[in-house]
Amino acid sequence: MSDVIGRCRLLAHATEEPGFITRTFLSKPMHQVHAHLRGWMEQAGMSVTIDHAGNLRGCYPSARPSAPRLFIGSHLDTVPRAGAFDGILGVVLGVALVERLGGRKLPFAIEVIGFSDEEGVRFGVPFIGSRAFIGDVDDELLGKIADAITAFGLDPRCISEARAGDDALGYLEFHIEQGPVLESQHLPLGIVETISGQSRLEVMFEGQANHAGTTPMNLRKDALSGAAEWVGAVERETRAVPGAVATVGNVNASPGATNVIPGAAKASLDVRHAENGVRHNLVKRLLRCADQIAAGRCLTVSWKQHLDQTAVAMDPDLTQLLERAVAATGHPIHRMPSGAGHDAMIVARRMPAAMLFLRSPGGISHHPDESVLAGDVVAALEAGMHFLEALEQRLA
Amino acid sequence: MSDVIGRCRLLAHATEEPGFITRTFLSKPMHQVHAHLRGWMEQAGMSVTIDHAGNLRGCYPSARPSAPRLFIGSHLDTVPRAGAFDGILGVVLGVALVERLGGRKLPFAIEVIGFSDEEGVRFGVPFIGSRAFIGDVDDELLGKIADAITAFGLDPRCISEARAGDDALGYLEFHIEQGPVLESQHLPLGIVETISGQSRLEVMFEGQANHAGTTPMNLRKDALSGAAEWVGAVERETRAVPGAVATVGNVNASPGATNVIPGAAKASLDVRHAENGVRHNLVKRLLRCADQIAAGRCLTVSWKQHLDQTAVAMDPDLTQLLERAVAATGHPIHRMPSGAGHDAMIVARRMPAAMLFLRSPGGISHHPDESVLAGDVVAALEAGMHFLEALEQRLA
Repeated sequence: MSDVIGRCRLLAHATEEPGFITRTFLSKPMHQVHAHLRGWMEQAGMSVTIDHAGNLRGCYPSARPSAPRLFIGSHLDTVPRAGAFDGILGVVLGVALVERLGGRKLPFAIEVIGFSDEEGVRFGVPFIGSRAFIGDVDDELLGKIADAITAFGLDPRCISEARAGDDALGYLEFHIEQGPVLESQHLPLGIVETISGQSRLEVMFEGQANHAGTTPMNLRKDALSGAAEWVGAVERETRAVPGAVATVGNVNASPGATNVIPGAAKASLDVRHAENGVRHNLVKRLLRCADQIAAGRCLTVSWKQHLDQTAVAMDPDLTQLLERAVAATGHPIHRMPSGAGHDAMIVARRMPAAMLFLRSPGGISHHPDESVLAGDVVAALEAGMHFLEALEQRLA
Repeated sequence: MSDVIGRCRLLAHATEEPGFITRTFLSKPMHQVHAHLRGWMEQAGMSVTIDHAGNLRGCYPSARPSAPRLFIGSHLDTVPRAGAFDGILGVVLGVALVERLGGRKLPFAIEVIGFSDEEGVRFGVPFIGSRAFIGDVDDELLGKIADAITAFGLDPRCISEARAGDDALGYLEFHIEQGPVLESQHLPLGIVETISGQSRLEVMFEGQANHAGTTPMNLRKDALSGAAEWVGAVERETRAVPGAVATVGNVNASPGATNVIPGAAKASLDVRHAENGVRHNLVKRLLRCADQIAAGRCLTVSWKQHLDQTAVAMDPDLTQLLERAVAATGHPIHRMPSGAGHDAMIVARRMPAAMLFLRSPGGISHHPDESVLAGDVVAALEAGMHFLEALEQRLA
């Protein structure tokens, strides 16, 4: 449905930085996004509120008075210089699904939710919207964001009202894959089984800085050469573990001058896998490699762990329902882990959550060239309708 | 002679940065250095001037009226937070040699010269002192440094007067090795045969930046992994070439975030060897390695050459004289290239030049811990006296 894509492109004009799409937590352009979405939501028969965490919430009521509630959502904020689909596509798709019902009421309410923050750009803390939604904003975080909430016209003292009630049936999130896997297998849709756990470390090799001209090769303790050998080991060892990814995003040599042998080199490490045990073992193996490489070069090595984020499984029952819904569209079924974090990961702590990926052309995301195929949007909407109908039958 | 070391330590108090030794081209503390040296020079029977490039020059006359002139010198400036011996030791040793003559006149004059700039810290241009000494300061350089010369109380319009006359017999420079070679072979002194040529390049690997969590290992074009593999090749290939050194001083990954696969990685390269042909061949081989590694990883690679500085041979005749002088001290003879640039490299363009290295304990230089052994200073002075006596006999 090209309308969904058109709406995402329209909302992309709401930006803090002209010529790019940059829209952080409760920044001014978020008001425009809310205004557009509110209009479409109300036209589809939804009643719209903005909670005090800045989440936009449109409720499509059930035929029954105290029916449970299915949440469909994703986030409305972006990284700096983003694409037009990461996050917001899931909200626009939620609205489009309700539109498709054409006023028909179901035995459950549908609440489409646009989270105020997932990327964490403005305050360096991600998932503010979904954390408020599950009642997980502590005083420290609230202290950081209170002024921004007030400036947006909301009341930080009432943030606890953003918490979902006990009538939740579950949470469904549509999101672009942000990776090349579906495209490489010619698949429009992917059913997320797990959101991978993640380890982040900093690994520091130390040797001896020295004059690049006067120190023979055999008398060097070159920390950057050690780090470089280890980057190779990270790649080799990780390739041997199915489903694992590991990335060295940067290596900073010190002093870093062209004519000085590096005395120190600090490398970042990011390791992800759907199974925590596999990830922990891989991290251990990579650190053992670092130890061996350092020992063989008379270097020392040390590390700091900055993150050990556990893998989060999607709800097996809702995921099976989603799989059947995809099957009903005639498209192939493909279960996969998500290597990136998503709101569904946070929401899963409070209610059953399921997630559907749409293919990312070129695997491109967090970039103005980010896109989605019209046919894949149609497929996602069809799968979404089958999902709603299956729930309808179950609760009938 | 501990007096030489003591004088270097005393001069180290002349600094722009209290607590460290930092003394750049014609900075204020250079006045103190000149004052001390002038005193010692005049006591040794030398007449002292400062030329308009800021070089301190002490002339010890010959017995004969129009005798030729031997220059003995090095530089008086330092890198930031330097040691107490790099450069200035060669000047203090020159004065000590003249003192040792005890007033005895030779068939040649001796001019001890303290160059105003070798490190190039203040204006980003090295060798200002020795370039003026050989008449190689062009208008562009003069425009940069003229105000500093005036502020020091000199006249930039007269800089051409700094040029050595046609009566030059040759140039002798004593300098600390600034590397670990002599120490590793338990040698006090090293006779410099050649100042190595140097190539400096920047090598850029380019791939595809992507999400560290969503891009499987086999679908990556990780530029940093390519650069890291190449750092290993640089080390391996260079070790196979006797006397060659090559250094990657830094690798800058872009975008450089922990959770993004690097789309580009720029590495510096510094290659040195005493023979230009060997150096050029090694650079070619390293770039071929970069090509092969890039091709194997679906990356592109490109490079820019920033420097191709030719090797400079010391004068064979003077060097042989110096070798015999070292032999006469009873210490072992060791000929070696200098991997670092020195004033002798510049002066050699205008007159025969020779250079003697003193062992650097720990190979440490450009650092407050830089030092020199008292016994090695004695050995250098003895070799210097034998060198003067050999010249004396030759010209008698």
